[in-house]
Amino acid sequence: MSSATPLPAYTSYKHILVSSPGPFVAHVEINRPKKLNAFSQEVWLEFGNVFNQLSHDEDVRAVVLSGAGDRAFTAGLDVKAASGDGILSGSDADIAKKAKVLRSHIEEFQDSIGAMEKCEKPVICVLHAVSIGLAIDIACCADIRICASNTRFAVKEVDIGMAADIGTLSRLPKLVGSTSWVKDVCLTARDFSAQEALSVGFVSQVHDSKQAAVHAGVALATTLAEKSPVAVQGTKELINHGRDVSVAESLRYTKVWNAAAVQGKDFAEGLMSGLKKTKPRFAKL
Amino acid sequence: MSSATPLPAYTSYKHILVSSPGPFVAHVEINRPKKLNAFSQEVWLEFGNVFNQLSHDEDVRAVVLSGAGDRAFTAGLDVKAASGDGILSGSDADIAKKAKVLRSHIEEFQDSIGAMEKCEKPVICVLHAVSIGLAIDIACCADIRICASNTRFAVKEVDIGMAADIGTLSRLPKLVGSTSWVKDVCLTARDFSAQEALSVGFVSQVHDSKQAAVHAGVALATTLAEKSPVAVQGTKELINHGRDVSVAESLRYTKVWNAAAVQGKDFAEGLMSGLKKTKPRFAKL
Amino acid sequence: MSSATPLPAYTSYKHILVSSPGPFVAHVEINRPKKLNAFSQEVWLEFGNVFNQLSHDEDVRAVVLSGAGDRAFTAGLDVKAASGDGILSGSDADIAKKAKVLRSHIEEFQDSIGAMEKCEKPVICVLHAVSIGLAIDIACCADIRICASNTRFAVKEVDIGMAADIGTLSRLPKLVGSTSWVKDVCLTARDFSAQEALSVGFVSQVHDSKQAAVHAGVALATTLAEKSPVAVQGTKELINHGRDVSVAESLRYTKVWNAAAVQGKDFAEGLMSGLKKTKPRFAKL
Amino acid sequence: MSSATPLPAYTSYKHILVSSPGPFVAHVEINRPKKLNAFSQEVWLEFGNVFNQLSHDEDVRAVVLSGAGDRAFTAGLDVKAASGDGILSGSDADIAKKAKVLRSHIEEFQDSIGAMEKCEKPVICVLHAVSIGLAIDIACCADIRICASNTRFAVKEVDIGMAADIGTLSRLPKLVGSTSWVKDVCLTARDFSAQEALSVGFVSQVHDSKQAAVHAGVALATTLAEKSPVAVQGTKELINHGRDVSVAESLRYTKVWNAAAVQGKDFAEGLMSGLKKTKPRFAKL
Amino acid sequence: MSSATPLPAYTSYKHILVSSPGPFVAHVEINRPKKLNAFSQEVWLEFGNVFNQLSHDEDVRAVVLSGAGDRAFTAGLDVKAASGDGILSGSDADIAKKAKVLRSHIEEFQDSIGAMEKCEKPVICVLHAVSIGLAIDIACCADIRICASNTRFAVKEVDIGMAADIGTLSRLPKLVGSTSWVKDVCLTARDFSAQEALSVGFVSQVHDSKQAAVHAGVALATTLAEKSPVAVQGTKELINHGRDVSVAESLRYTKVWNAAAVQGKDFAEGLMSGLKKTKPRFAKL
Amino acid sequence: MSSATPLPAYTSYKHILVSSPGPFVAHVEINRPKKLNAFSQEVWLEFGNVFNQLSHDEDVRAVVLSGAGDRAFTAGLDVKAASGDGILSGSDADIAKKAKVLRSHIEEFQDSIGAMEKCEKPVICVLHAVSIGLAIDIACCADIRICASNTRFAVKEVDIGMAADIGTLSRLPKLVGSTSWVKDVCLTARDFSAQEALSVGFVSQVHDSKQAAVHAGVALATTLAEKSPVAVQGTKELINHGRDVSVAESLRYTKVWNAAAVQGKDFAEGLMSGLKKTKPRFAKL
Repeated sequence: MSSATPLPAYTSYKHILVSSPGPFVAHVEINRPKKLNAFSQEVWLEFGNVFNQLSHDEDVRAVVLSGAGDRAFTAGLDVKAASGDGILSGSDADIAKKAKVLRSHIEEFQDSIGAMEKCEKPVICVLHAVSIGLAIDIACCADIRICASNTRFAVKEVDIGMAADIGTLSRLPKLVGSTSWVKDVCLTARDFSAQEALSVGFVSQVHDSKQAAVHAGVALATTLAEKSPVAVQGTKELINHGRDVSVAESLRYTKVWNAAAVQGKDFAEGLMSGLKKTKPRFAKL
Repeated sequence: MSSATPLPAYTSYKHILVSSPGPFVAHVEINRPKKLNAFSQEVWLEFGNVFNQLSHDEDVRAVVLSGAGDRAFTAGLDVKAASGDGILSGSDADIAKKAKVLRSHIEEFQDSIGAMEKCEKPVICVLHAVSIGLAIDIACCADIRICASNTRFAVKEVDIGMAADIGTLSRLPKLVGSTSWVKDVCLTARDFSAQEALSVGFVSQVHDSKQAAVHAGVALATTLAEKSPVAVQGTKELINHGRDVSVAESLRYTKVWNAAAVQGKDFAEGLMSGLKKTKPRFAKL
Repeated sequence: MSSATPLPAYTSYKHILVSSPGPFVAHVEINRPKKLNAFSQEVWLEFGNVFNQLSHDEDVRAVVLSGAGDRAFTAGLDVKAASGDGILSGSDADIAKKAKVLRSHIEEFQDSIGAMEKCEKPVICVLHAVSIGLAIDIACCADIRICASNTRFAVKEVDIGMAADIGTLSRLPKLVGSTSWVKDVCLTARDFSAQEALSVGFVSQVHDSKQAAVHAGVALATTLAEKSPVAVQGTKELINHGRDVSVAESLRYTKVWNAAAVQGKDFAEGLMSGLKKTKPRFAKL
Repeated sequence: MSSATPLPAYTSYKHILVSSPGPFVAHVEINRPKKLNAFSQEVWLEFGNVFNQLSHDEDVRAVVLSGAGDRAFTAGLDVKAASGDGILSGSDADIAKKAKVLRSHIEEFQDSIGAMEKCEKPVICVLHAVSIGLAIDIACCADIRICASNTRFAVKEVDIGMAADIGTLSRLPKLVGSTSWVKDVCLTARDFSAQEALSVGFVSQVHDSKQAAVHAGVALATTLAEKSPVAVQGTKELINHGRDVSVAESLRYTKVWNAAAVQGKDFAEGLMSGLKKTKPRFAKL
Repeated sequence: MSSATPLPAYTSYKHILVSSPGPFVAHVEINRPKKLNAFSQEVWLEFGNVFNQLSHDEDVRAVVLSGAGDRAFTAGLDVKAASGDGILSGSDADIAKKAKVLRSHIEEFQDSIGAMEKCEKPVICVLHAVSIGLAIDIACCADIRICASNTRFAVKEVDIGMAADIGTLSRLPKLVGSTSWVKDVCLTARDFSAQEALSVGFVSQVHDSKQAAVHAGVALATTLAEKSPVAVQGTKELINHGRDVSVAESLRYTKVWNAAAVQGKDFAEGLMSGLKKTKPRFAKL
Repeated sequence: MSSATPLPAYTSYKHILVSSPGPFVAHVEINRPKKLNAFSQEVWLEFGNVFNQLSHDEDVRAVVLSGAGDRAFTAGLDVKAASGDGILSGSDADIAKKAKVLRSHIEEFQDSIGAMEKCEKPVICVLHAVSIGLAIDIACCADIRICASNTRFAVKEVDIGMAADIGTLSRLPKLVGSTSWVKDVCLTARDFSAQEALSVGFVSQVHDSKQAAVHAGVALATTLAEKSPVAVQGTKELINHGRDVSVAESLRYTKVWNAAAVQGKDFAEGLMSGLKKTKPRFAKL
C-alpha cells in the first residue's frame, strides 16, 4: 500500500489513493500492490469515479498517475476475478443475450478508463515495472507519458485470445509515429522496453528508477499547476477535440471556445504579466 | 522466377507465386524478376485476386510479401505496357469520356492493391533493392514493413508528371511520424534509404540482405500464426477501422466486435492457458 | 529590412517582402525585423493576401518563407499592438457581443495564416532564432519545415493565459509522431531546440546558420520548381485533402482528381522523358 | 399527480412515475402536473436515471412517455427554479469560470435528456396540450412521436433570448422533411399545431384526446413488446448509429452487429415460426 | 417468366432478365415469379453482376428495375433456401468462427444489392404487389422509386427475429422525411400502402397497375436516356457522394469532378443547343 | 430596376439593390430585370460581397432576398456572358491547366453564392416567376424559402450538358424530405410548381403574387428582427453547423457556444421579460 497521505475528499476509495504532493497537484495511485495493481470491476469503477471527481475539483490543476509499490504500474485485468464473473465463465445463455451483456460490460469498462481522458485537468502517467495489457489502455488516456527504465510494456491481449478492447487499438496509432510498430507490438503481444517506448514517441521521458520518474512527473505537474488553468485546460480540450475532427472543424470549435475563454481574467493577467515581466497569479477554475 | 514450391490452391496465377514456408504461413512473391517485378494490368488483377483468396483461406493465418529475384521488390508500374494501352497513349477521345475511363481504370488498380489491406490476415511486407513508385503504394497496404539494407525507396510518381494515385498519398501520412518528411519525399521524388525509412517509422526492421529480411519476415509471420486467429484478425480489423473514424466510434465498433469474438473458444483457451501456464492451441478460423 | 529585390507584382506590401532567388521560386520574408517580425493585424492581412496572390501566380511554382533579419523568424503576436485594440483591452461591452467580435477576429486571423496552407504551391518554411507563439501556427501551415540550429521554438500561448487558437493545436498533433511530446510542449510552453524539433519530425533539416538554412530552402524549392507543376500541386492537394478524410474518401477524390490531371501534357511529357531518359520541360500552370 | 400504480423497481423517483400498462411495457410519466411538468435540475437528473434503469431492465421491452395531468406534456424548463441558481442569476464571477460552469451544466442536462435516446428499448413519446421548449428537445430523443390534437408545440427558446441547447437544433433537422420549416419554427419560436407536426413528419399519429393518444401509444408499445427483443433493440441501435455516419460505415457496423445477433435463439425462433406460421415466443434480453 | 426479349449481352443470367424497351434504356427484371421473385444466394450474386455490367455498358444510359409476374416485386429472402445453408441452420461451430462466416456472408449480400447504387447509370425502381423485406433494401439503392397502387410494402425483418442488414436501416432514414415514420415501419414490421409510401416521399409516383407503373418507369428512363450522359451520370454521382459527407466536402469534390466533365463535348453541345434552341445529340459515354 | 431606396452603405453595388423595409430588416434584390436577373461573374462577385457586408452590419438582423421585376427571380447563369469567357469557349489550352482554371472559377462562384449561407443573419428567400438553374443553388443557401404561386422552378443544369455545381446537388437533398423527388427533378431537369415545392418541403409558404410573397417575407423578417439577435444568430449557426456533423459533435459545439452566449444581456432580458410578461428590448449585436 502506498504510504502517502490521502486527500480528505478522496478517502472513500478502496483501491485508489489520491494524495497531494504540492499545491494544486493530485497524485493518483492504483493501490493494490499485492495483486500487481490488477483491475477487477470494483477497481475500474473506482478509477472512473476518481477522475470524474478530479475533473470538477477546483483545488486540482494537474494530476500524476502511478501504481503503488515497486512491482507494477499494473498487470492489467485481474483475470482470476474476471473468470469468476458469469460474463467470462462458460454459460449456456443465449448468444445474442450474452452479446448484449458483453457490450454493456465493455462499455462500462471503456467509460471508466476513458474518464481519465475526459478529465479536464492534464494527467501525467508514470509507468514502471510491469505495465501490460490494461496498462497500455490506461496510458493512452493520459496526456503525457513518462516511465522508469525498468518498465516492461506489452499490449498483451492477443496472448489471452482476444483483441484489446479498452482503447489501445483505438488510441495508440494516433499517439505515436509508426503504424508498422503499433501493429508489430499489438499483433505479437511482445514486450517492449522503456527505450523503445521513448524512440517511437509513446513516452516523453525515461528515468532511472520509479522514484525518479514519479519525481519528474510531480515536477512537471507542478509546472502545469502554476500556469493559467483556463489556458491549460483549454489546451487539453482543444488538442483532444482536434484529434477526431478535420482541421477546419477544429479551427471552428477553437474560435468558439476562445471567444469565451479570452474574456476571462487569466488572459488579461497573463498578457499584463508578460508585458510587465511579473509573475502572474491565477484564480481557481 | 522464384524457386519456391507453390501452394496447390494458388498455382493458376502467372505473375504471383504463393508458397508456404511453415504452418499457416503464406509467402507471396511478385514473380516477374526479369521486368523488375513491374506491374501491368494483368499483374495487379492477379495481385488483388491472390489476396482476396488468402483472406478466406483458413489454412493461412499470416502472410509475407516480397519480390522475386534480387534486383527489385518492384520497379512499380510497367510503363511500357501502360503506354501501349489506349488509356495512356494520346487519343482524340472526348475529354469527359476519357475522364470516365481513367476513373474506372484507377479504381480497379486501387481496389486490386487495396485487397492486401482488406485481407483479414496480417501481411508483412519485405522490401529490398528497387522499391519505387507502386512499391510504396503496396507497402502502405501491409501491416508491418521490414526491409533489406540495400532497399532504394522512392515515391517516384512526380517524376513522370503525375501525383501518386494508388494510395501512397492517402495512407503514407497516416503511417509515419513526420508530415514534413512525407511531403519532402512525395514532392521531390528523391530516393530514401532503408535507414531513413527506419528512422521515420516507415519500416520496423532493417536486415543485411534480402535473404535475412525474408527470413525475419517469415519468422515474424510464424509467430503470428501461432497466436489465436480470432485475436490476431480482430486486432488487424480494429486498428484498420480505427484509422478512419473518431476514437468514440472506434470504441463503439470494438465493443460490438468483441461481444461476438470473446464468446469463441480462442478466448477461453487463451485465458485458461494463461492461468495454467500451458501452450494454447487454436482451431482454424 | 531585407535587402532582396522585390518581385514587381508584390511591391505594394509593407510588411512582407517577396523576391525571386531563381526561376519559378518565390522567397517570402516577414519583414519587420525591428519588431522581431511580430504580427499586428496589418501584418497578418498582408500575409494572407501574399499567399492568395502566390497561389494564382503562374510564374511561381515553389515558395520559401523566412523572417527578415537575424533575431527572429517571428516573435509571434505583436502584443503591444494587440493590447491597443478594443478587442483585448477591458471594455464594458456585452459578453455575447464581445464573443461575437472575438469569433470574427479569430476567424480573420486563422484565415490569413491558413492562406499559406491553401496556397496551391508547395511552401518550405525556414525557421531561425526566435520562433515562438504564432511562429508555430505559421510553420504548421507549411509543407516542409527546415531550420537553423539556433532556432528557439515555443508554443508560447499558455504563458499569456490562453490556448493557442491560430492552428497549432489543430495541426501540430497531425504533423509529428508523438502526442505525448505535443502535449508536453503545448501545456508547458517550454522552449525546444532545433535538434528536438528534428527528432520528433517537426522539421526535416537543421542547418548551422540562418544563411545555410535559407540556402537549403531555396535549393529545395528550386528542385520542386523544376518538376511538373501538375504533379507537384496535385501531390500537395491530395496529401492535404487526405489528412481530414478517411482513406476510402481520399482514394475516391484522388481518382477524380487524376482523371483530369493525367490528360494534361505534363504526364505525357514526364512519361516520355522517363522512357527516353531526356530532361522534361513543363509548361506554366 | 398520475394515478397509475408505480412499478416496484421505480418507486424511489419523486417527479417521474413509472407504471406498467401491460407485459413488458413501461409507461413513464413526467409527474409535476401542478408545475405544468416543468423541469428543474432535480427532475432532469431523475429523468436520466429512469431511462438508464429502463435500458437495463429485462422486464421492459418498450416504453411510452407522457406528461401527467391534462394541461401539459411539459412547459419546459422551470424558469423560476433556474433563475434561483447561481448559474443564471447575475453574479460577478470570472467570465471564463462561468463559461466552464455553464458548459458542465449544459452537458449534464443534455446527457440526462439524451439518456432516453441511448435507452436500448424503443420509446414512444405521447405529446399533448402545452409542449414547448424542452418538450421538443425531449420528443426529439424518442423513437416514435404521437400526439393529441390539442397539442401546442413551440421551439420556444429564442423567446427567452437563447438558442435551444438540449438537442432540438441538433436533432430536429434530421427527423423531419423540411429544413425551411425547421428554421421557421426555431427562429420565430411560433406555436405549431398537431396537424402541422403531422404534415412535416414530426409526429406519426394525431388523436382526438390525450387519453386516446396515450391509449394508441400503449397499443403500439404492446405490439413492439411482442416482437423479438433482439430484433427490435438491434433495429433501434442500427438506425440511431446510421444517422451519424456514412452508409458504408453503417453497413460495416450492421454486419458486425448481426454476426452476433443472428446466432441468438430469436432469429431461429422467428424464422421457424415464419415458415410454420406459428406465433413465436421470445426470451428475455 | 417474363416474355421480354433479353439483350444479347445479358443472356447468361438465369434469374435476372435484361431487355431493352428503347434506345439506351435497359429493363432489368427479377425473374423467379413462381417463387415470388425471392432471393437465394445465386440470385443476389447475379443481381450484383448484372448491375456491374450495366455500369460499364455504353449502350445503356438509364435502367428500369421491376419484378417479373404479377404477384410480387419480390417477397425478399428465399427463407427456405437460406435455412438449408449451414449459415442459418443451427450448427455446433465455434461462435467466433460463425461470426466471421456471417460477416463475410452479409458483406457479400450487401455488396451485391449495393451494386445497383454503385451502377453509374440512374436506376428507376418499379414496385408492385408483394414488396417486403429485401424489396425495401433493394428499392433504397435505386435513384427514383415509383409503384403500382396494389403494392404491399413492409420492412419485414423484425418478424423473423432480426434487424434488417442489407441496407434498409442505413439508407431509408436518409431517403424520406420522417424518422418517426421510419422507426414505426421498421420496428413494427407492419404493411404500408402505395399511398403511404407516396406521402412520406419514399416513392415519387403511384400508378393504377403494374403495367402502368412499368410504362411510366420506361418513359422516365427514356427521358433520362435522351439527356447528356455526362450530365446525368455526374448528377447521380454527386448526389450520392454528397449524402455521406459535409456540404463543404461535397462542394470540393463537385469542383474537381466538373473541372473534367465540362471540358467534354456534351457541355459545349448542351450549351449551344440551348442558345440555338436546337435538339442536342450526345455521344456514348 | 427596383424602385426601392437603397441603404446608404450599399449604394456602390451595380447589380444588387439593398433597401430597408423596416427596422433592422434588409431587402436584397437581384437587380438586372432586363436580363431576367441572370448572373454574370460581376453579379455573383457583388452578391457575395453584399452578404459578407450584411453579416457584419449591426443594423441588420434579418434579410429578405428577391429578384427585381416581375419576370424572374433569376434565370440563372448568364450563358451568353459565360460563353464569351475563355473558360467556356473552346480553346486549345492544356487539359490539366484548363482543369485548374475551372476549379478556381467554380470555387469563386461557389464561395460567392455560399456567402449567403455563411451570413450570420437569417435570410428569407422569396422566389417568383422564372427560378431556374442557379436560382435553386441560391435558394438552397437561404434559411427559409417562400414563393409566389407563379414560380417556375427547375434544376436546369442537366439540360445544358452538365451536373449542377454551385450547391444544389450538395444541399437540396439535405433540405427536403424525399430523395426520390430530388433525383427526379435533378436528373430530368423538369419544371416543378410552387405547389410541388410546398408539398416536398422546399418552400414553407406559397402566396398569390410576387407582391404578396415579398410582403410575407418582409413580415417574417420583421418578426425575426424583433427577437434577440444573440438567440436568432445562434440558432442559425447551430442548425447550420449541425447539418454536417454527428449529433454528439453538434451537442458539444452547442455547449461551448452557449457558455458564452447566455452570459450576454439578451438572455437575462429575455428571461426576465418572460417572467414579468413585458416586451424585451435587445441591444445591437
